[in-house]
Amino acid sequence: MTTSLPLTDLHLLDPAYSGQPLQAQLYLALSQRILDGRLQPGDRLPSSRLLASDLSIARNTVLAVYDQLQAEGFIRHQPRSGTFVDLRPPPKPLSPTPTATKRQSARPPPPTLNRPASQRDTDEANRPFTPGLPDSDAFPLAIWNRLQHQQENRRSLLNYDSYQGYAPLRQAIADYLRQSRGVRCQAEQVIVTQGAQQALSLIGELFLHPGDRVLIENPGYRGARFALSKPGVTLQAVPLADTVLDLNQLPAQTDAKLLYCTPTHQYPLGGILDISQRLQLLDWAARTGTWIIEDDYDSEFHFINKPIAAIQGLVDNAPVLYVGSFSKTLFPALRLGYLVVPPDLVDAFTQLKRIHAGESPLLTQAVTAAFIEQGHFARHLRRMRQHYHGKWQQLNEQIEQRLSGQFRAVAESAGMHLVLERNGDDRAWANAMQQAGFGPLALSEYALETPQRTGLVIGFANASEVEIRQGVAAVAALP
Amino acid sequence: MTTSLPLTDLHLLDPAYSGQPLQAQLYLALSQRILDGRLQPGDRLPSSRLLASDLSIARNTVLAVYDQLQAEGFIRHQPRSGTFVDLRPPPKPLSPTPTATKRQSARPPPPTLNRPASQRDTDEANRPFTPGLPDSDAFPLAIWNRLQHQQENRRSLLNYDSYQGYAPLRQAIADYLRQSRGVRCQAEQVIVTQGAQQALSLIGELFLHPGDRVLIENPGYRGARFALSKPGVTLQAVPLADTVLDLNQLPAQTDAKLLYCTPTHQYPLGGILDISQRLQLLDWAARTGTWIIEDDYDSEFHFINKPIAAIQGLVDNAPVLYVGSFSKTLFPALRLGYLVVPPDLVDAFTQLKRIHAGESPLLTQAVTAAFIEQGHFARHLRRMRQHYHGKWQQLNEQIEQRLSGQFRAVAESAGMHLVLERNGDDRAWANAMQQAGFGPLALSEYALETPQRTGLVIGFANASEVEIRQGVAAVAALP
Repeated sequence: MTTSLPLTDLHLLDPAYSGQPLQAQLYLALSQRILDGRLQPGDRLPSSRLLASDLSIARNTVLAVYDQLQAEGFIRHQPRSGTFVDLRPPPKPLSPTPTATKRQSARPPPPTLNRPASQRDTDEANRPFTPGLPDSDAFPLAIWNRLQHQQENRRSLLNYDSYQGYAPLRQAIADYLRQSRGVRCQAEQVIVTQGAQQALSLIGELFLHPGDRVLIENPGYRGARFALSKPGVTLQAVPLADTVLDLNQLPAQTDAKLLYCTPTHQYPLGGILDISQRLQLLDWAARTGTWIIEDDYDSEFHFINKPIAAIQGLVDNAPVLYVGSFSKTLFPALRLGYLVVPPDLVDAFTQLKRIHAGESPLLTQAVTAAFIEQGHFARHLRRMRQHYHGKWQQLNEQIEQRLSGQFRAVAESAGMHLVLERNGDDRAWANAMQQAGFGPLALSEYALETPQRTGLVIGFANASEVEIRQGVAAVAALP
Repeated sequence: MTTSLPLTDLHLLDPAYSGQPLQAQLYLALSQRILDGRLQPGDRLPSSRLLASDLSIARNTVLAVYDQLQAEGFIRHQPRSGTFVDLRPPPKPLSPTPTATKRQSARPPPPTLNRPASQRDTDEANRPFTPGLPDSDAFPLAIWNRLQHQQENRRSLLNYDSYQGYAPLRQAIADYLRQSRGVRCQAEQVIVTQGAQQALSLIGELFLHPGDRVLIENPGYRGARFALSKPGVTLQAVPLADTVLDLNQLPAQTDAKLLYCTPTHQYPLGGILDISQRLQLLDWAARTGTWIIEDDYDSEFHFINKPIAAIQGLVDNAPVLYVGSFSKTLFPALRLGYLVVPPDLVDAFTQLKRIHAGESPLLTQAVTAAFIEQGHFARHLRRMRQHYHGKWQQLNEQIEQRLSGQFRAVAESAGMHLVLERNGDDRAWANAMQQAGFGPLALSEYALETPQRTGLVIGFANASEVEIRQGVAAVAALP
């Protein structure tokens, strides 16, 4: 029999097809008809010539589709008799979705502890007063682009490279960390990551298994909490002494595998452990056999004196996993960070990086390396230190003028943010500020357990003079 | 008392310091002397003026270092009496490395199943005949760079963006997959990842927990095996019927959460499931409640007929997690891939991406989106299909001339590689080829369990005409 396939509606068959090449439309139209049984096994398709003229398309297009359908086993061409539907649709209608029960079981709930939001409005993510945002208007984009142009034609940068990271970048990072952060490391100890977040995730992957324990300063950085929260792993809060990790609250004995902390600039409260406290912390780690995750996220931006050296470099073979990121020192969308670990841990971390993400983008690494090698990075940091110091002073003036007594301004030496502390419903304040177009976070969001302290964490690095004035006014207007 | 600190050796104190700014050298020299007890509490430091002249450096440099040391609690300045060491070194010498036992316990062994190498020589990774490498010389770099220049000054591309991926790129990917791969998806279902490897890792993270089971075609893609190998998770091999997944070997009932497969181009053996087998596979998945990971890694490069549509698009709501990558269609160092999942899984996957790596590089995503939107991607794929077809024909000619009978050439429709099968010690062959400067992999490397089949997996996409001749000659010379 001849097929009763209505030919004239093929173009309009399915809105999803429109705008696609004729060949694709015809392919989808015919294969779909065969799949849903509108065309039955044995049905004869019109000759390519006839179909082409009916659809007023080129015959070669029809022939190509017939070839394709035959190659896939939809149809069969029989010389001298025609082209026939060959596929027997599955006996019972496909029920392609796994049964509810199994489908549920196939979908474990995503991490629940401080479960982070998955969606974030791009505008929301970049508002004035949003913590952690550098001033992208102050980034030397012209220099950056020039370095990019110098390397963009190197075809070797299109290929595969080291999982650990582009060697010149690891060298540049090691040199920078040795000279500016007092870190004791060689390029061989540096692992390039997709921001500090991947570095923290890899640490959790290597060190943490069900039944393990992690000590974490509280309040503290949420990204670390997310990365170290694993099924069966206990997160144990270590409270602060006002604005720094309270060393007296560290357990004398512990089975904890890791301690996460920000010794050189507590996040978010901004305190700094002095040298005797730093040595005490290292001594505690050695005594209890705990590895310290030192998150050195923005120490470049201390205003008073030179940035204080990392604890990783205070002694040889410190039991420290040093984590850093270019998100604040260069720009967030670069998505480059680094991990510095003892030589005998490098191989394991590099393997895990290979398994979970593979190499890092090569041209990006090469440009970043050149930016550091040629001194632009050091210059940029110096400039930003002054730039942010100016914003910080302006913010403090505004706070004194507008908020005197209303809030306690914490973190005098903060680099890119400061905390306004006060008892109350800080999430309501944060929401009100969002309504007003500002992005501060509630201090209670940084708490591991029931929040003890409330307030607003205010990022000022990306706020203009006007925005700082308006933002503080908005805070003053809070109920 | 006055310190007996020998001043003249400060510059040379520690090779690690040399080449650093004078201020950093002096800071490190003094702080180190205090830390190791060579300078004792109460020791008086020379006046800044005296030390400056002794070292013949600027007095301000010394003053800055003294300020820094005082800020950190190393020294104390007493007006009219001088500057004194203030830090009492820890009573007993620091033993900063966690005790052996605990340190061991703090370091679980890295994944052992087919434990991948962590280091890879860049040259090694990009040799002719290395599987999976596109021809980077054929990439339209000038067009790519032009698109980059058009966007590189957009400062909004320096900031934070969606964790799921840059919206225009997700739209471009969805449009491409709908039109060219028959995938049924909207931009909302696309998650941008750091290559297919991160996509596979996120699937394992969301779906797999201790006690779970995964079905995986064998031989198969090693990267998938690495990503899905988790503590307590059982990987169950599903053998091939010659060059495709053997559907008759799929268990009628199974508690498996996932089946990993490459239905449109088995990796590495290159077979294609025909349409009735594809429907049978989907039906099996629905019956057994198993999710299918469809890794569509290089289907763009089928030579015979048009690329065959993905199984994800054969029916509505197929229980398929669709994985793709730009590593082969654009270039490996781009490090961009994608995951297409049912709408109700998007949120969980995006959360995990946020936790483990955060956003993807923004400018890279924007350039890739423009490359696709403006039709360059489709043109590039068409050109590469012909380009690789030519290399494939040349390789086959060489194989027929030089290897007749020595090996069985598998995977007639392979896109970027083919398999030479033969019984024997294929790892020895691969090593011999490495010595000769070629990068084929042993087929047995792709085996989940004891290898049943041996041979060489030969990537030809990045091999020149000469290299193909020489490479086949090298194979012919194998013992």
